[in-house]
Amino acid sequence: MMGLPRPKPGQPISELSTPLPMIDERKLVTNIERVQAYMDSHGLAFRPHIKTHKIPAIASQQAKAGAKGINCQKITEAEIFADAGFEDLLITFNILGSEKLERLAALNARISGLKVVADSEMTVRGLSSAFSEIRPLSVLVECDTGGGRCGVQSPESAVALAEAIVAVPGLIFAGILTYPKADTEEAVEAFFAATLAGLAARGIPCPIVSNGGTPSLFSAHKVTSATEHRAGTYVYNDRAMARSGHCSLDDCAMHILATVVSRPTEDRAILDAGSKALTSDLLGFSDYGLIFEYPDAVITGLSEEHGTVDLSKVTGRRPEIGEKVRIIPNHTCVVSNLFDVMTFHRDGIVTRVEDIAARGLVW
Amino acid sequence: MMGLPRPKPGQPISELSTPLPMIDERKLVTNIERVQAYMDSHGLAFRPHIKTHKIPAIASQQAKAGAKGINCQKITEAEIFADAGFEDLLITFNILGSEKLERLAALNARISGLKVVADSEMTVRGLSSAFSEIRPLSVLVECDTGGGRCGVQSPESAVALAEAIVAVPGLIFAGILTYPKADTEEAVEAFFAATLAGLAARGIPCPIVSNGGTPSLFSAHKVTSATEHRAGTYVYNDRAMARSGHCSLDDCAMHILATVVSRPTEDRAILDAGSKALTSDLLGFSDYGLIFEYPDAVITGLSEEHGTVDLSKVTGRRPEIGEKVRIIPNHTCVVSNLFDVMTFHRDGIVTRVEDIAARGLVW
Repeated sequence: MMGLPRPKPGQPISELSTPLPMIDERKLVTNIERVQAYMDSHGLAFRPHIKTHKIPAIASQQAKAGAKGINCQKITEAEIFADAGFEDLLITFNILGSEKLERLAALNARISGLKVVADSEMTVRGLSSAFSEIRPLSVLVECDTGGGRCGVQSPESAVALAEAIVAVPGLIFAGILTYPKADTEEAVEAFFAATLAGLAARGIPCPIVSNGGTPSLFSAHKVTSATEHRAGTYVYNDRAMARSGHCSLDDCAMHILATVVSRPTEDRAILDAGSKALTSDLLGFSDYGLIFEYPDAVITGLSEEHGTVDLSKVTGRRPEIGEKVRIIPNHTCVVSNLFDVMTFHRDGIVTRVEDIAARGLVW
Repeated sequence: MMGLPRPKPGQPISELSTPLPMIDERKLVTNIERVQAYMDSHGLAFRPHIKTHKIPAIASQQAKAGAKGINCQKITEAEIFADAGFEDLLITFNILGSEKLERLAALNARISGLKVVADSEMTVRGLSSAFSEIRPLSVLVECDTGGGRCGVQSPESAVALAEAIVAVPGLIFAGILTYPKADTEEAVEAFFAATLAGLAARGIPCPIVSNGGTPSLFSAHKVTSATEHRAGTYVYNDRAMARSGHCSLDDCAMHILATVVSRPTEDRAILDAGSKALTSDLLGFSDYGLIFEYPDAVITGLSEEHGTVDLSKVTGRRPEIGEKVRIIPNHTCVVSNLFDVMTFHRDGIVTRVEDIAARGLVW
């Protein structure tokens, strides 16, 4: 039961066995500082979403840079970060079912700043059954401002659900929240403004107004009613973020190191990175990642352990069997969920190896 | 650091927290027995691929039914199964690099039936550097009979590579192998026949002729030169296998139990199963799995923790918040790689919970 070897600080990344995801320390710091500076300059509190890294040490870097609290998606993730000393934890998920509600109550009893969301009376009823005035739970109303996932559909429904939360002794209404479609700041602002007006008319204070997302992050200041912004992907960045204009390809801190294991034909290379290393997330691309050293090569298909690469458009030198390449993934967050450890490097030398402590925690 | 709770034998699956993959014991046994009976009736040795389950206890069920040896994709997977007592292990991957070759030599030293593949002189040279006559390694030549992944491109190249293997003291030529495109038995047979003739002409014995794949598994007998067949997915089956005609939807032993966590609109439901539970593998489908209880519902999109469901074509009753549903995944093998444990049940009662011991082992 030896598993995968753990790289050691001081090792050159060129010596590491593949496939292996790795993070450039310098780009990581640049990404963290750039976004925090933007938020600071606009007086917006910034709440990083830990889904991208799932590593407490990275969340600590984000907090040290000025982030206020963190965003988790699941209770079991929040437990990991509470264990690491974080107190201001927002779980952006409708939590249902007695087993999960018990775990949530236990978590709420040991940290001071736990918050969750709700978008239905059913969810509020469930939460109210598990919490009391002795140790109440803070709840935000999730609003669908056009993202098309969870959330109440109108400002009127948001106000009504806030009233339902206020009416329950075990719950505290803590604010409103959205995970918007990219580049829809006007729609978000209009939804928030109408909701805030309705809450004010009923004398219901709304301490938190939470907006989110990485793709249009640098337009976050246009939502003037927001008190905070949440984002995850910015910390590593990826090919999809570069396409959206959020960053350049050079800002992508995560590369997946892979080896060419076969060259069956002149135009075909096979990598040892398949869907178990890259996932099959396309995010609108028609191929499965960008090979840094061979940008004209196309990863046309993945099976679990193999990536099939079309080299027909590669002019000049083509990769040889045994050669290592670096892949910029389409979607960085999902890669973190596939591996148990993340390797960090500076100038190609391993600096540290962190457990991806919240990997696989789906509830 | 509590992580996800482990279901207990005797629990009704309806009580389990979601998302959760689970296996129907009865369907598992039926799938194992049906394929083994087919192979037995055609005198083909059967070598299950462990990638689908990654669990030694399931490989033991396959062996008990009559399977001869197992197929792994990676060294670290093979180590797990060697620890569990398996000796006849075939690793169908080009193994390159000193760190991996050392691990491979250590594994070869402790089990009697280790075999790997090669499809290039470069791979053969690497293998030969790590093995000697004292404890030689068995190597099969991988042939690309139309699958378009790894493999030598012609029978002539296959024979030439076999000669290169024979010429090295530390390696034993053990046979030829292909991972074919589905429904191309004639092409496989022609490639194998020409290769076997070339080997015979040079006096090179070819003990193993290994064909593979689940989709056209029940046509395996048409490749009369094959001595064995390899397949993985058949053990659980999935939506893609049902589409191919290999099985019916009722033969799919894996369901992912999920909960409706939001009903934002009349036509939209949100499940707590996203790409971290189902993966984004489409395998030619345009949606992300089939909801057993609501076959007219369409899982139109996945984010990491949410599945978005279009209910517009569901006539009659629609799912409510808190309701649990079962999803037949597009691709079962990739689901096994996302979770640390697999839950088994019979008639809806948990029978056992197995560690997915070879999860995440990418090299």
